[in-house]
Amino acid sequence: MKLICTRDELLEGILIAQKAVPTRTTLPILQGILLDCRDESLNLRATDLEIGIECSVNAEIVDRGWLVLDSRLLGEIVRKLPPEDVEISVAEGNITEIKCANSFFRLQGQSGEEFPQLPQVDGERSLTMPQDLLKSVIRQVVFACAVEETRPILTGALVECRSEDMVMAALDGFRLAVRNVKLEGVREDICAVVPAKALNEIQRILKDTQEEVHIKLAGNHILFGMERTRVISRLLEGDFINYKQIIPEEYGTRIRLKNEELLESCERASLLAREGSNNLIKLNITKNQLEITSNAEIGDVREEILSETEGQDLEIAFNSKYLTDVLKVIEDEYLRIEFTTSISPCIIKPEGSEDYTYLLLPVRVIS
Amino acid sequence: MKLICTRDELLEGILIAQKAVPTRTTLPILQGILLDCRDESLNLRATDLEIGIECSVNAEIVDRGWLVLDSRLLGEIVRKLPPEDVEISVAEGNITEIKCANSFFRLQGQSGEEFPQLPQVDGERSLTMPQDLLKSVIRQVVFACAVEETRPILTGALVECRSEDMVMAALDGFRLAVRNVKLEGVREDICAVVPAKALNEIQRILKDTQEEVHIKLAGNHILFGMERTRVISRLLEGDFINYKQIIPEEYGTRIRLKNEELLESCERASLLAREGSNNLIKLNITKNQLEITSNAEIGDVREEILSETEGQDLEIAFNSKYLTDVLKVIEDEYLRIEFTTSISPCIIKPEGSEDYTYLLLPVRVIS
Repeated sequence: MKLICTRDELLEGILIAQKAVPTRTTLPILQGILLDCRDESLNLRATDLEIGIECSVNAEIVDRGWLVLDSRLLGEIVRKLPPEDVEISVAEGNITEIKCANSFFRLQGQSGEEFPQLPQVDGERSLTMPQDLLKSVIRQVVFACAVEETRPILTGALVECRSEDMVMAALDGFRLAVRNVKLEGVREDICAVVPAKALNEIQRILKDTQEEVHIKLAGNHILFGMERTRVISRLLEGDFINYKQIIPEEYGTRIRLKNEELLESCERASLLAREGSNNLIKLNITKNQLEITSNAEIGDVREEILSETEGQDLEIAFNSKYLTDVLKVIEDEYLRIEFTTSISPCIIKPEGSEDYTYLLLPVRVIS
Repeated sequence: MKLICTRDELLEGILIAQKAVPTRTTLPILQGILLDCRDESLNLRATDLEIGIECSVNAEIVDRGWLVLDSRLLGEIVRKLPPEDVEISVAEGNITEIKCANSFFRLQGQSGEEFPQLPQVDGERSLTMPQDLLKSVIRQVVFACAVEETRPILTGALVECRSEDMVMAALDGFRLAVRNVKLEGVREDICAVVPAKALNEIQRILKDTQEEVHIKLAGNHILFGMERTRVISRLLEGDFINYKQIIPEEYGTRIRLKNEELLESCERASLLAREGSNNLIKLNITKNQLEITSNAEIGDVREEILSETEGQDLEIAFNSKYLTDVLKVIEDEYLRIEFTTSISPCIIKPEGSEDYTYLLLPVRVIS
């Protein structure tokens, strides 16, 4: 095997593929990156057996072949090489020579045959959307996935498509995030639960462009295909929660306020909420004003925010993290929050659209 | 006590004073910052009893007084406040109110009387130099201080002044860094060993300007005074090593090469040196070329660098960290390295000046 490519393109490919390399594993080969040039191009591949990432790199293939190199060391070497052509050639026993300008590395590689194959994901069930849109959808939903594995299905987000409507939803028992998207040309109904870990990696790989990403489902796997990169993830098995029934349709109090003001006030109040127990902040809603308070042994805080209030006054308490999380991902300047009672969930929405809904359970406070 | 100041200036002062707050301490008051406005200005002060930092902040003092607030929490609060006026007022029992725009914090403070005083450093022994010069001197020397405390005096750097010559020197048993500076108007001879920790903090506070820093010695303390900030450190007790006698005056081999090329090659070679034992890289010096090699179980590396060589060919080995450390702080484009034998120290100097000398012991390699 022998190939020549530029250091910059090689590095870019390695950085993408590396996202699938597990930090800890009992299977040493998974700490490697497969360099596959059995065809007329160079494909980098890595996997932790849950997620697989494949990335093609422009290269001149002099001799075909394949090989596995240690991912961390290869990444560090290529990062430190000068921005010139890199020649990689493999000799007897998978000894690999990496040449660039006046640098000559030799690394012990492993045979490409030992590297796990990625599952084939071919099928009719597919959809296409702009990369920046999918990135924003994932960003607004995935943080609400459960971290604890007591109910494994909640560690993923539901991806559902019916005709032209796509929805992504996640919940963890304390909050629910739902994002709706209108798409063109959906072929078949899709319903899958994708692990949060895979969505987080895909979000990092997606670019802020309108270039398309192709999503395909087959068997127990989902594939996200971009120009040079393919990400394949296992799906979570089981039925997702029927989240629609827990979204209240009516409210007794509704406030309208600036997202940024609320976020900054919540972040300040969090400084004391964090010192106390439960990360608790209290909201006191009156005509034209929202007051946020929190207290701990070392002190207390009160924040006053102008708001437009409809309906009754209300006192309600939340875990401050669950409130700030959503304020960071809403892109609109103003938002609306709808409440019923101090012990029922509230609904947070951007003012300008019905595409995003965040439901948050309050914390009961004995006062 | 009551004062008004801008959030930005208060934050700047807190960030400077905080550098003296210990991360761990058995004396809880040291986790605080003293706000001292017993005079017509606000002075912030923090100390870990080894280093003390005092910083004055522009403020309107409405009522005089002093008070200690938790450093971490105060810093976080002020950082999150909007960029407007901040009013700090203290009521009964050191309860402190911090108001800014629509934010109202109350924190439990402690009496200023409980905070340790900083030693007075007044004396004749003083010198003055531009801040950017002192910053560069510290940067080129302090990394060579010993980290281990087996010989406490080596955990500091020597600061010595005789008439118009100032020198800073540090060594750790493997390498020695010496920087000479010509100064104007030195009054009395100075000789002190300043802890590396204090020098590192001062380096971070010093600005890249020609504004002056005043250095004073009295008793067992040294003071660095800048426009708004004063840093006071304890000195290390004992005699410093007579380092001059270990600097060889002759050489058998001398090379001249580009600093940046050598640094990049060393950093690449370090990637494998780190995998092996001892962090070892080997230099093979021949006419017109320096070859750097390193090897580990997983592979090896060879780097070729153009150099101008005078004298005999030589093979010599170093700990790669000790070599890269110095290459990062030499500001000249070219440098010279002088060798005698493969088991005697080498001398590294910037090409353009005699002001800086770095001595590095080789590692003996059984070949």
